[in-house]
Amino acid sequence: MSVRTVQKPAPRIRIERIQPQLDCGRFPVKRTIGDRVSVTATLIRDGHDILGASVLYRAPGKRRFESAPLEPIGNDVFAGSFEVTACGRWEYAVEAWSDRQATWRDELRRKVEAGQEDLTGELAEGEQLLGIPQLDVETGLASTASNREGTVRSATYGVEVDRELARFGAWYELFPRSFGGFAGVEQVLPALAELGFDVVYLPPIHPIGRTGRKGRNNTLPAQAADPGSPWAIGNEDGGHDAVAPELGTIADFDRLVARAQEHGLEIALDFAIQCSPDHPWLKQHPEWFQHRPDGSIKYAENPPKRYQDIVNVDWDSDDWRGLWEALRDVVLHWVRHGVRVFRVDNPHTKPLPFWEWLIAEVHREDPGVIFLAEAFTRPAMMRALAKLGFSQSYTYFTWKNTRPELEEYVTELATETAEYYRPNFFANTPDILHEYLQGGGRPAFEARLVLAATLSPSYGIYSGYERIENVPLRSGSEEYLDSEKYELKQRQIEGPLLPLLRRLNEIRRSNRSLQRLDNITFLETASDFLVAYAKQSSADTLVVCVNIDPFASREGLVSVPPEVGLPGSFVVQDLLSDETYAWHQGGNYVRLGPGQSHILHVR
Amino acid sequence: MSVRTVQKPAPRIRIERIQPQLDCGRFPVKRTIGDRVSVTATLIRDGHDILGASVLYRAPGKRRFESAPLEPIGNDVFAGSFEVTACGRWEYAVEAWSDRQATWRDELRRKVEAGQEDLTGELAEGEQLLGIPQLDVETGLASTASNREGTVRSATYGVEVDRELARFGAWYELFPRSFGGFAGVEQVLPALAELGFDVVYLPPIHPIGRTGRKGRNNTLPAQAADPGSPWAIGNEDGGHDAVAPELGTIADFDRLVARAQEHGLEIALDFAIQCSPDHPWLKQHPEWFQHRPDGSIKYAENPPKRYQDIVNVDWDSDDWRGLWEALRDVVLHWVRHGVRVFRVDNPHTKPLPFWEWLIAEVHREDPGVIFLAEAFTRPAMMRALAKLGFSQSYTYFTWKNTRPELEEYVTELATETAEYYRPNFFANTPDILHEYLQGGGRPAFEARLVLAATLSPSYGIYSGYERIENVPLRSGSEEYLDSEKYELKQRQIEGPLLPLLRRLNEIRRSNRSLQRLDNITFLETASDFLVAYAKQSSADTLVVCVNIDPFASREGLVSVPPEVGLPGSFVVQDLLSDETYAWHQGGNYVRLGPGQSHILHVR
Repeated sequence: MSVRTVQKPAPRIRIERIQPQLDCGRFPVKRTIGDRVSVTATLIRDGHDILGASVLYRAPGKRRFESAPLEPIGNDVFAGSFEVTACGRWEYAVEAWSDRQATWRDELRRKVEAGQEDLTGELAEGEQLLGIPQLDVETGLASTASNREGTVRSATYGVEVDRELARFGAWYELFPRSFGGFAGVEQVLPALAELGFDVVYLPPIHPIGRTGRKGRNNTLPAQAADPGSPWAIGNEDGGHDAVAPELGTIADFDRLVARAQEHGLEIALDFAIQCSPDHPWLKQHPEWFQHRPDGSIKYAENPPKRYQDIVNVDWDSDDWRGLWEALRDVVLHWVRHGVRVFRVDNPHTKPLPFWEWLIAEVHREDPGVIFLAEAFTRPAMMRALAKLGFSQSYTYFTWKNTRPELEEYVTELATETAEYYRPNFFANTPDILHEYLQGGGRPAFEARLVLAATLSPSYGIYSGYERIENVPLRSGSEEYLDSEKYELKQRQIEGPLLPLLRRLNEIRRSNRSLQRLDNITFLETASDFLVAYAKQSSADTLVVCVNIDPFASREGLVSVPPEVGLPGSFVVQDLLSDETYAWHQGGNYVRLGPGQSHILHVR
Repeated sequence: MSVRTVQKPAPRIRIERIQPQLDCGRFPVKRTIGDRVSVTATLIRDGHDILGASVLYRAPGKRRFESAPLEPIGNDVFAGSFEVTACGRWEYAVEAWSDRQATWRDELRRKVEAGQEDLTGELAEGEQLLGIPQLDVETGLASTASNREGTVRSATYGVEVDRELARFGAWYELFPRSFGGFAGVEQVLPALAELGFDVVYLPPIHPIGRTGRKGRNNTLPAQAADPGSPWAIGNEDGGHDAVAPELGTIADFDRLVARAQEHGLEIALDFAIQCSPDHPWLKQHPEWFQHRPDGSIKYAENPPKRYQDIVNVDWDSDDWRGLWEALRDVVLHWVRHGVRVFRVDNPHTKPLPFWEWLIAEVHREDPGVIFLAEAFTRPAMMRALAKLGFSQSYTYFTWKNTRPELEEYVTELATETAEYYRPNFFANTPDILHEYLQGGGRPAFEARLVLAATLSPSYGIYSGYERIENVPLRSGSEEYLDSEKYELKQRQIEGPLLPLLRRLNEIRRSNRSLQRLDNITFLETASDFLVAYAKQSSADTLVVCVNIDPFASREGLVSVPPEVGLPGSFVVQDLLSDETYAWHQGGNYVRLGPGQSHILHVR
């Protein structure tokens, strides 16, 4: 490092600790439309110069950066914010400079205060600095750009801005074949809309393979009438861009999407990158699949599990580009049919760079498309998928059933990973019927529903939850007996939990504090069975208390600490029962029946 | 981003969260010779491949990287280490790959365990993979480089390795003119060595200016006999590379440096970038100084403080290169005279890029040179100086005099900034005589000495501490009355605290736990006046307890928690009094006189 090669000395202002940022700027943080992005940075310079600073920000597709002021908040930290008003990748950077006039004024002020009488030299400096002939020490002087010296600019950081639905929504998962295909689903849209759902998520709707088809309860061989698992995608009728004839035509599907929109609902599709051995791609693109030395093709397996009805693509294929593009084109095909929400099956078994590329490609066409990652694996992988672009993610929620587990996990989501990991708390899925639900009956289902709907801005149920379906395949299994994955069912939207579902979705929509994740404070309850938390927004404050014991009434003292910022005494109204109670800071007596809850609105 | 332009797909393994690293790798972390650098990284890949990894590391000036294994420790985290054996900038990176044989073996094992009987296809794959004709499933197979697939390598990170003295040392500051110049200092070297000091730090030894010279107690004008402040550097006898004739000749100085080495001591010089108005540079390089519009030169000031005896250099000079190089050459001049430790005066008022450049330039010549930053300013600047290269730093220690203050500050140093900020706890300086010392008499001096010497691996005192000099300039001031900065004194190494100093330095040298910073656990004492902490190394465990009340005896229960890892009961020996006590986990009764301490060695 020779100084001789340097033309100008390096900038004297150093910009450090810019927040928010993720992995040194490698990944964007996430926001939704209308959010303000609060930015802080530490600015350091030698000596006593007064520094000025701004955050420069640029909307997606724009050429020019706009600017908002950063103001000092103490200890060399500067803070400001800007609003994100469109979907897509925003950028921001921090700029800082020495404010020459402010520096001069500050030094002059300190000299005046120290009693220095002869200020001739200082005033001469000021005249030169300000470029004005007459100078009055008392005159206010506006800071101008020409007044900036030694301006430095940080690296640029990203903010991925999504539709509000990426953060806040209620999901309902159903198998369309159990409702009579697309036309039948169309019939239940009004009921789902009236219940307050936002997304109707359909498992794969494509033609189902015949080779290796699974029969009832995941057995081999299938009987002639067995419909097969929808995740065994592709047969002679087509692959990922086709619809299974038994569900209807593509025109029927288009009409379903349009009707859903009329009801304020969105249809979400499943994107599962695997093929039945009968998928057209196996003949059209054999190079996209891995073959054994003997030329045979391997079915999918993860010992001891075997998936004889599907084969995986070969990510190491020489034609990996063709494969990537074909998969992108599948998603874009459905985007063009009006689908803007995708639930992605097992993304953790596909290359991370592929997802980063695919999501960016789709967002180039429509930045409002939402991708939900269905990855149940170790934390680092689930986080990596969220960082690289998935709009929201499945979670460990179904397995967190004690008070310490819930508090620890939700706190982690609300703090450590809050900048990029948006949870979607499904209370059940076609693959996960937790033993708590198997054994706890209706109270267990009620407790878990309230927890899912009030802990996480996004939550969902899989059809049958409202009917308290809870019979496992066998003892110790989390799979359903006679799973809808492998057989034809007749279903309707009905069941004892519908009123609670409807009320929860109403409460979620009318209370902004339930629409965000990071505004939660867990409360002491003096009972391991009472889970309590405050959620706060500028518009409302709720206190939720859930008795997670499905077998017994439980009582405790829900402690409201001063940090929550509520007055000494206040009135709460239970949004489930409509009863009101007088509450106060400190312990408040609560008694709840098995699986029952208070959702208390602070007046 | 078009896939068409990409030749190969991006790597499937992602390397995240490499530790240690500082500010995304912008700055190196710090270590001293002989340390092991523990490295961890999170490795993620889609699917079920077994990953292998290593840390690649390179010694300063070497071309090739060496390699040490990283082993999985759970949750996708891999860990390993390497030893640093030379001063200078080491580099390291993480490399990871899919281990093809291990992956094949793992899948085979899972199939065997799942009861699969026909393994023909799997064994055929294995033969191909291993390239051997005969294959026995039971055979152990060594992992080889050719067995690695999809190898990825992280960015490279830095480790700055210093001499042990950068971390661990006892400093004594003296004004050589008060001891009769270089020859006089030479006379007291045996005493300082016998007391266990490592560094003798001298304020500036250069010719002192006459213009604006300060008289006694920082007054103007000076009397004819007043020697002036050593920090007003330069007169007709020379500038930063000259020695003041009243101290001796450069030959005398060289002999002092040599004698110090013989006694195991190092001479530290002060590097203060400022000039008396009589400094030769003002005539030789007027362009290095800032002039007023009327052509006059500004003396240094920081209102309300004025420094009429010095002028600052102009960092915005057109010839900033010449200035930077001249300052570097000053340091190198003294390095060539055997000085390898510099205490840098007020580095926070000089540009950060200058320091980063200067320290790197000096380290190119001698990576063992140690720079101590004398910056008393806001935390962000003090941290920035440490990050960019200062080997160690002054601290807020003198102003931390209560138990909560000490615990909070030392915990911050031992955790948050431990990777780069090495504290040097000076108990006093020529500018800082804290009111605790002014008012507390000998007990206060004893307590602070034990705290400094046992809390921080590096500590120091300024001459006079051992004599309990504690008279301030005036009430409310932290400056000394009749400060040695402005007048000639006659000093010797004497005073009532010498035995304690000697014993503390002995204890520090013979107990490795006092030679590191991050091995501290503060202990509950049930008294605000008893500060207690355990310090642990693989060689020894000490428990220190200090009564910080200089006026009264205090008693309490020093609580040894299970986390400290000591047995249920144990014997401790007080290294100050030689007494032994039976201690145990839980509370241990302690009573200490005003300012008195236990330094308990756990047997």
